[in-house]
Amino acid sequence: MARRRKRTSEREFAEAIARAGRGRGRGVDVGIGDDAAVVDPWPGKTLLTTDTMVDRVHFKRAWLSPRGLGRRAVRVAVSDLAAMGGRPRHLLLSLELPRREDPGQALAIVRAVMAEAEAVGAVLVGGNVVSAPALSLTVTVIGSSSGRAVTRNGARPGDDIWVSGYPGQAAAGRRLLAAGKARGVLVEAYRLPPLRIELGRRLAASPEVTAMIDVSDGLVSDLETLCRASKVSAVLEPSLIPVSRALVRYSRRPRADALSGGDDYELLAAVRGPGAGKRLARVAARLGVALTRVGTFEKAGRGAPVRDGRGRGLGHGGYRHF
Amino acid sequence: MARRRKRTSEREFAEAIARAGRGRGRGVDVGIGDDAAVVDPWPGKTLLTTDTMVDRVHFKRAWLSPRGLGRRAVRVAVSDLAAMGGRPRHLLLSLELPRREDPGQALAIVRAVMAEAEAVGAVLVGGNVVSAPALSLTVTVIGSSSGRAVTRNGARPGDDIWVSGYPGQAAAGRRLLAAGKARGVLVEAYRLPPLRIELGRRLAASPEVTAMIDVSDGLVSDLETLCRASKVSAVLEPSLIPVSRALVRYSRRPRADALSGGDDYELLAAVRGPGAGKRLARVAARLGVALTRVGTFEKAGRGAPVRDGRGRGLGHGGYRHF
Repeated sequence: MARRRKRTSEREFAEAIARAGRGRGRGVDVGIGDDAAVVDPWPGKTLLTTDTMVDRVHFKRAWLSPRGLGRRAVRVAVSDLAAMGGRPRHLLLSLELPRREDPGQALAIVRAVMAEAEAVGAVLVGGNVVSAPALSLTVTVIGSSSGRAVTRNGARPGDDIWVSGYPGQAAAGRRLLAAGKARGVLVEAYRLPPLRIELGRRLAASPEVTAMIDVSDGLVSDLETLCRASKVSAVLEPSLIPVSRALVRYSRRPRADALSGGDDYELLAAVRGPGAGKRLARVAARLGVALTRVGTFEKAGRGAPVRDGRGRGLGHGGYRHF
Repeated sequence: MARRRKRTSEREFAEAIARAGRGRGRGVDVGIGDDAAVVDPWPGKTLLTTDTMVDRVHFKRAWLSPRGLGRRAVRVAVSDLAAMGGRPRHLLLSLELPRREDPGQALAIVRAVMAEAEAVGAVLVGGNVVSAPALSLTVTVIGSSSGRAVTRNGARPGDDIWVSGYPGQAAAGRRLLAAGKARGVLVEAYRLPPLRIELGRRLAASPEVTAMIDVSDGLVSDLETLCRASKVSAVLEPSLIPVSRALVRYSRRPRADALSGGDDYELLAAVRGPGAGKRLARVAARLGVALTRVGTFEKAGRGAPVRDGRGRGLGHGGYRHF
């Protein structure tokens, strides 16, 4: 880890992390423990993203074990790369720890980040640890893409809207956790977001995929973001939205969760032509992932950027200037 | 910015940032505003580091304007790269904002990070903004090095210890700020750490420079870190430590500040042979930077890793296991 606080215990914490991370990773000349990590660049384009999870803003300690926290932070950060069609290669972790944090729990978080980095094909090569009022994890992902990176701004009127997995499960799981329930498919959907790296790469390899975004704020909300970037509007057909059995069984509002729940970390893609979409759905199925058509992009109009089949606005509505 | 919070104002804030950052930077295919940034990799090795500044832990709002905060965060993060001999290329900013933060001030911080990134030869290509109990800035620097990267572990007995600039000024400045003084050389030394990128590159290009670290925790403390990494000890000669006139004039304990003040972001280097050291001091002088010999490395012994000429331990003392 690159920097430490002045108290000896924190220096020792950094040293414990350095020992845990020693010797990991091909192409890593200098890993954890120096001023900066030194690595070989990967061929192709370099992809860069960072994501922060703050205690009592994005999660509650009671909902996640230290290991679960570390794994979740990596998966959430990596999701941004999956949505471009990239592969994670190197990770940095910036950990803000409350002064009273148990060092054993903190080290368990870091070890989980290391292990999950390896599980997604990357290496934790550095970071830092500082004191702060609340626990927070910032995971920075440096990735690569051998082909094109798929942006949010390529969707055109007539393209279809496809979504992976079953949106809404994570939001329902989060609500169950808040109500004191600790088990089940929905709770696990919140705790451990899916890995869509391989699916993202397959989608990016297909020229018919014109835009992509990951679903973090909710299907309608992220679709709005994609619409604004692509300067199109979207007709989302609520009857087409895939709703999992678990969501139907355990949520009182399965369709609302699916539309606007958030925390899904599924992929939302614009695909040109029904043939390409069906072919990609078969590719996804072979990866064990559902890929479902949920609507169509249209010319941008005056109304809400995302509407249902009867023209009723979904989500927050239109764009307002800052 | 890659991700935003759900409240509309924060989405709009992210959009304002995206507008401010649009179209900057060569080799940047996709900058702020998509899931991830897409950039061309630089030739040579890739250097990665991240640094976090937390309100009321590392600074106080009253001490720094929003612009000053943004500039300082970039300089502090870039210092780690300078200490390896690297050049910053791309920056990511993760900004934690209290819910009541003034959006104008927050945007001023981000604009300052953008401007300072450019000033150091880099581009801010992404990041994110989240709510948190306290303001915090995490700056991740992706850099490159065309030659070797200088680590902390290469110092050998007999190498000399050289330091750039005038350590202790920033710590004295910080104390003046805490006492309500807002002006002067020392205060400025705290507010705007020096840029040592060019000096770091020159030192790294010299094979006689065997180890390097930046001085962030204090001269003795960071020298201890370098000693542990290199498995050597150090004899620091307090009479050789460069003490600035401002420090002598305004600090009641100039030598203590110089030895253990911290926040200097100067470079500390191990140099093999007095000839090489003198030559490098002339190189530094041409860059307008003092480079001063302050001691010598010795074989690691039983006592404190950093001692004065009479064998008395300086700093915290020896290594303790976690």
